[in-house]
Amino acid sequence: MRTVFYVSDGTAITAEVFGHAVLSQFPLPFEQVTIPFVETREKAHQVRQRIDDCFAHTGVRPLLFHTIVDPDVREEVLRANATAHDFLNTFVAPLESELGVKAEPRVHRTHGMENRKLYDDRIEAVNFALANDDGISTREYDEADIILIGVSRCGKTPTSLYLALQFGLRAANYPFIEQDMGMLELPAPLKANRHKLFGLTIDPKRLHEIRNQRRANSRYAALEQCQQELSRVERLFRQEAIHYLDTTSHSVEEICAKILEATGLRRQLY
Amino acid sequence: MRTVFYVSDGTAITAEVFGHAVLSQFPLPFEQVTIPFVETREKAHQVRQRIDDCFAHTGVRPLLFHTIVDPDVREEVLRANATAHDFLNTFVAPLESELGVKAEPRVHRTHGMENRKLYDDRIEAVNFALANDDGISTREYDEADIILIGVSRCGKTPTSLYLALQFGLRAANYPFIEQDMGMLELPAPLKANRHKLFGLTIDPKRLHEIRNQRRANSRYAALEQCQQELSRVERLFRQEAIHYLDTTSHSVEEICAKILEATGLRRQLY
Repeated sequence: MRTVFYVSDGTAITAEVFGHAVLSQFPLPFEQVTIPFVETREKAHQVRQRIDDCFAHTGVRPLLFHTIVDPDVREEVLRANATAHDFLNTFVAPLESELGVKAEPRVHRTHGMENRKLYDDRIEAVNFALANDDGISTREYDEADIILIGVSRCGKTPTSLYLALQFGLRAANYPFIEQDMGMLELPAPLKANRHKLFGLTIDPKRLHEIRNQRRANSRYAALEQCQQELSRVERLFRQEAIHYLDTTSHSVEEICAKILEATGLRRQLY
Repeated sequence: MRTVFYVSDGTAITAEVFGHAVLSQFPLPFEQVTIPFVETREKAHQVRQRIDDCFAHTGVRPLLFHTIVDPDVREEVLRANATAHDFLNTFVAPLESELGVKAEPRVHRTHGMENRKLYDDRIEAVNFALANDDGISTREYDEADIILIGVSRCGKTPTSLYLALQFGLRAANYPFIEQDMGMLELPAPLKANRHKLFGLTIDPKRLHEIRNQRRANSRYAALEQCQQELSRVERLFRQEAIHYLDTTSHSVEEICAKILEATGLRRQLY
């Protein structure tokens, strides 16, 4: 199996995300090694040796994907016997001529704290998502960017947290539980924030599986119960003209991207 | 201001993360527009028009960063009058010859649910982080990959959530509170999982600021209280030889990358 090294003088998260996207186009397994914070020539030398040892050990030339900003560190790492792909500079040089501006490379700009205010807002968004998870509190809905609603275990919590961590959005979520089902209507705090509501739904069989893992053979997990709750809540979404999304075959990243697309909410990039 | 379009037939998260990393090397502001899920030729045509309208309106040629897998969609989008950068194919062609394998492009591989088991594990990691946040429960520590410890508001919760969402790791966290400070020692559930412990600490002034936002002028937020708690907890870390990290000037991404580096925990890539 080919070994892939992701190397950076920062967190290496950009190198990982992007390298993973490129490699996922190939029907091959890879052994993946991430080496972040290569900030000195000494560390760079160790990385070079580690890559060369890998080549000696496996007999297959490793791939090296890097986002190294410091030129000295880069030069040393690139002495390794690997097929190197420079994610940043490949695009930086053509952009310099297009923009008519020289790049000013700085380490830690991407996932660092260059902008303290934006960062603090994002952490506050995470705190908001936790404080307003699962209907715990409805008092701060005035400050919410979005309020996710749906039955228990349809994907509201991971979606709220991802919206907060990745995009800095204040996402609350509110569950409809069994006791609500008799005369299902929007509770007052939701009515007052109707323009922020976004519904999530899920396939009843999938919901049954998820709930069964949590409380096996309970009434809560029974397929019939899941079907009833979902059909009532979806009827409410339609009656109230609330935009909603079926989460069954979507990852949390896909759900969030679809919500942003549907609502036009502005994401904050870090 | 130059407008940048991130366009994809998937979530566009890869295009955003990578484009943001490339652009952050330039000392310029950009107007950033993300357009995900461009899956049909009709949608591609709309995107092309939107980009051309932007050019007509601003008089500045937009930048287009794309990760479009479908060739028909790509062809149509690329008719737009923009400076286009193809994040995937720039690296895919050289890799094909290096690997001796043709790429098999498929939409939604990167942030989709190609691997259901891995995805479910990651969502379970998020549920685990929530159920084991802030010392709520210590019963599942056997199943934890890592247990973060430290004083209240030093960064444990966002770090746990990011480890779960981004890397699929089961991260619990446990706070040392004022009542613990008299005779500070490791509680039994932490002692039993000593090899999983990782300490977080923070600058006292920064902690004072953060706590003051939460409970202004409280004893909890007083600078002296913050100093005392931190010095006692740091002494405990040293006595017990627990690896720890100062979070003051690090983003949650940097903290997580440093923890993975220090512990050697294996990350799961999605």
